[in-house]
Amino acid sequence: MTTSLSLLTICGSLRQGSFNRMVANTLPELAPAGVTITMAPPIGDMPLYNADIQNGTGFPEAVTALGDAVRAADGVIFVSPEYNFSVPGVLKNALDWVSRLPDQPFQYKPVALQSAATGMLGGARSQYHMRQIMVFLDALVFTKPEVFVSFAKDKVDAGRGVLSDEPTRAMISTQLEGFARFVRKVGGPVNKGEQA
Amino acid sequence: MTTSLSLLTICGSLRQGSFNRMVANTLPELAPAGVTITMAPPIGDMPLYNADIQNGTGFPEAVTALGDAVRAADGVIFVSPEYNFSVPGVLKNALDWVSRLPDQPFQYKPVALQSAATGMLGGARSQYHMRQIMVFLDALVFTKPEVFVSFAKDKVDAGRGVLSDEPTRAMISTQLEGFARFVRKVGGPVNKGEQA
Amino acid sequence: MTTSLSLLTICGSLRQGSFNRMVANTLPELAPAGVTITMAPPIGDMPLYNADIQNGTGFPEAVTALGDAVRAADGVIFVSPEYNFSVPGVLKNALDWVSRLPDQPFQYKPVALQSAATGMLGGARSQYHMRQIMVFLDALVFTKPEVFVSFAKDKVDAGRGVLSDEPTRAMISTQLEGFARFVRKVGGPVNKGEQA
Amino acid sequence: MTTSLSLLTICGSLRQGSFNRMVANTLPELAPAGVTITMAPPIGDMPLYNADIQNGTGFPEAVTALGDAVRAADGVIFVSPEYNFSVPGVLKNALDWVSRLPDQPFQYKPVALQSAATGMLGGARSQYHMRQIMVFLDALVFTKPEVFVSFAKDKVDAGRGVLSDEPTRAMISTQLEGFARFVRKVGGPVNKGEQA
Repeated sequence: MTTSLSLLTICGSLRQGSFNRMVANTLPELAPAGVTITMAPPIGDMPLYNADIQNGTGFPEAVTALGDAVRAADGVIFVSPEYNFSVPGVLKNALDWVSRLPDQPFQYKPVALQSAATGMLGGARSQYHMRQIMVFLDALVFTKPEVFVSFAKDKVDAGRGVLSDEPTRAMISTQLEGFARFVRKVGGPVNKGEQA
Repeated sequence: MTTSLSLLTICGSLRQGSFNRMVANTLPELAPAGVTITMAPPIGDMPLYNADIQNGTGFPEAVTALGDAVRAADGVIFVSPEYNFSVPGVLKNALDWVSRLPDQPFQYKPVALQSAATGMLGGARSQYHMRQIMVFLDALVFTKPEVFVSFAKDKVDAGRGVLSDEPTRAMISTQLEGFARFVRKVGGPVNKGEQA
Repeated sequence: MTTSLSLLTICGSLRQGSFNRMVANTLPELAPAGVTITMAPPIGDMPLYNADIQNGTGFPEAVTALGDAVRAADGVIFVSPEYNFSVPGVLKNALDWVSRLPDQPFQYKPVALQSAATGMLGGARSQYHMRQIMVFLDALVFTKPEVFVSFAKDKVDAGRGVLSDEPTRAMISTQLEGFARFVRKVGGPVNKGEQA
Repeated sequence: MTTSLSLLTICGSLRQGSFNRMVANTLPELAPAGVTITMAPPIGDMPLYNADIQNGTGFPEAVTALGDAVRAADGVIFVSPEYNFSVPGVLKNALDWVSRLPDQPFQYKPVALQSAATGMLGGARSQYHMRQIMVFLDALVFTKPEVFVSFAKDKVDAGRGVLSDEPTRAMISTQLEGFARFVRKVGGPVNKGEQA
């Protein structure tokens, strides 16, 4: 792995005016030197997961596109709202599809978590569910600092569609710097037999 | 609330040959005396949750149908697989929709959990995520006995599409009896001002 | 069950100047009419749980005292800090002991959760672990409103050892009112065979 | 980091005949070539955590001893029962103490989890709580294969105090091989500024 890193952002909300999408939009300008951050292919074009589709017509194009993007990235950043104290169904549905792809894309993939919410907890509850999901996917989830954007409505510039609150931008920059070091340290295959 | 109870089953899997669907199919014949168990309207016809749809064309018909069925039931039984150590996206998506309905259908609703899986843990991990989701929805989740159908492939009659393993059927009967007592005890509004 | 209720507070911190103890100290004056709230026997006098002690000299006196107090109460309120993103070991140790008592004291017991912390999340993470623990104990945990006292240092009168912040006191009063209705509705045995 | 590794086992049960202790006793003989596995100093000699003790007489000797052992190890293996669907209070108490030590011992420490139980789930629920605790401690927790020793009573040789079931021994050997690769890959400081 070289010094330059390519990270992928997956946003868990489909709505146009999503605060999480505004946070995701802002990540490229907060990226540390040598780190490129790009948005993943859309997750809203996938059907609801059904093994009969997978075994019939095969994986939908939106699924293979997301899987390819995850495999190509050095690390993945989830930016997602919390729905009903957990991960949004729409995001979980994307993971349910991608997890069935051959050469499972998240295996040994460094992952960072961010969430924004209008309330005080900033989506924290959903991140611990996401961490458990990532155990199954054999991903390597960054620990701290955690990023919970609380009272998100007051921290965005809705017109420009970006995160504008300076302390929050600084907190995210700190996480991205830590995550870049983490990716450089732990990225790449860690547990394959040929590596022993 | 009278002695007779009407319970609703929501199945978290869409595939035809789902082991969880076979368990769900079997519940009516395992129901205690005076308890009727019926299958909920399908959750596979809902779009992926998007607040812009809700605020545009409004709630899809499949969402209002499920909400009405939940409201009409004395209690709800979820029978769901575990995907990636958590709740299936397709089931969470249905909950994300229904939770936004006016007069939120799950409030004070008694709920029981069942899961079937091919492995040893029988979907246990997903049930604790479901319990956290139900806190937000203000539902009253039955505690014990828990129902985890492990090694599900060996416990069904796939031809007839039902659960055939006798010890598992007995375990589920025991849960249904306890759940019926629970519904009779805690069902109905518990926290509304007018109740004080 | 009569109109008057007797609730028991269990505090999860041993230190003298604990913010959670200050919250617990304040509950009696926030109790709704007809509700008495008293502090549980101390949990700091128990040895670390060891089945060999239980099977040798039997349950320590502090354990039976706490069990008796829980059994005698109409409901239990835990007021506890979060240590390392979970329940304090000292509180879990008390539960590990009490859970082994004959006629398990928490069965069908209505329970409410409160936590105070110096940070923004107010101990939220620990409450979901506590809820899972309470599933095993077959307790009936109140859902909402949840009480997370964030930035607790700014909300107490350390000299008097009480919670002084008015909005937080009002939030707790609201929870206590809801919990009292919940106890009156769901309290008492709910799942015993003789009840069917 | 050289090829040889030194791993530390922390057992979460205090009782003499603990199945988890038997599993822990067996790890040295299942260690891959070049890996030494030793038992941690006892966690049963610590007082219940109380910040007033820490600020008064300071950290108890048993706490500093455990912290030193963790710092000296290349990785830590927890072998613990599940009590009441979560981490034993006695083990959590040890972590609550150690987490306050200066130069927090678990930071960036590779960690593996094992649990044994008499039931079918083999302690699985407690491991996800442990994983959340480890997020706060900034440890790097190995993902898969997970080790849940179910029906533990039938898998040990209680007389010799070891795990005797061959399939379970093989499963643990596989985890230890994967964990050794993981330690070699991700061990050492990963997120310190000076490392960038």
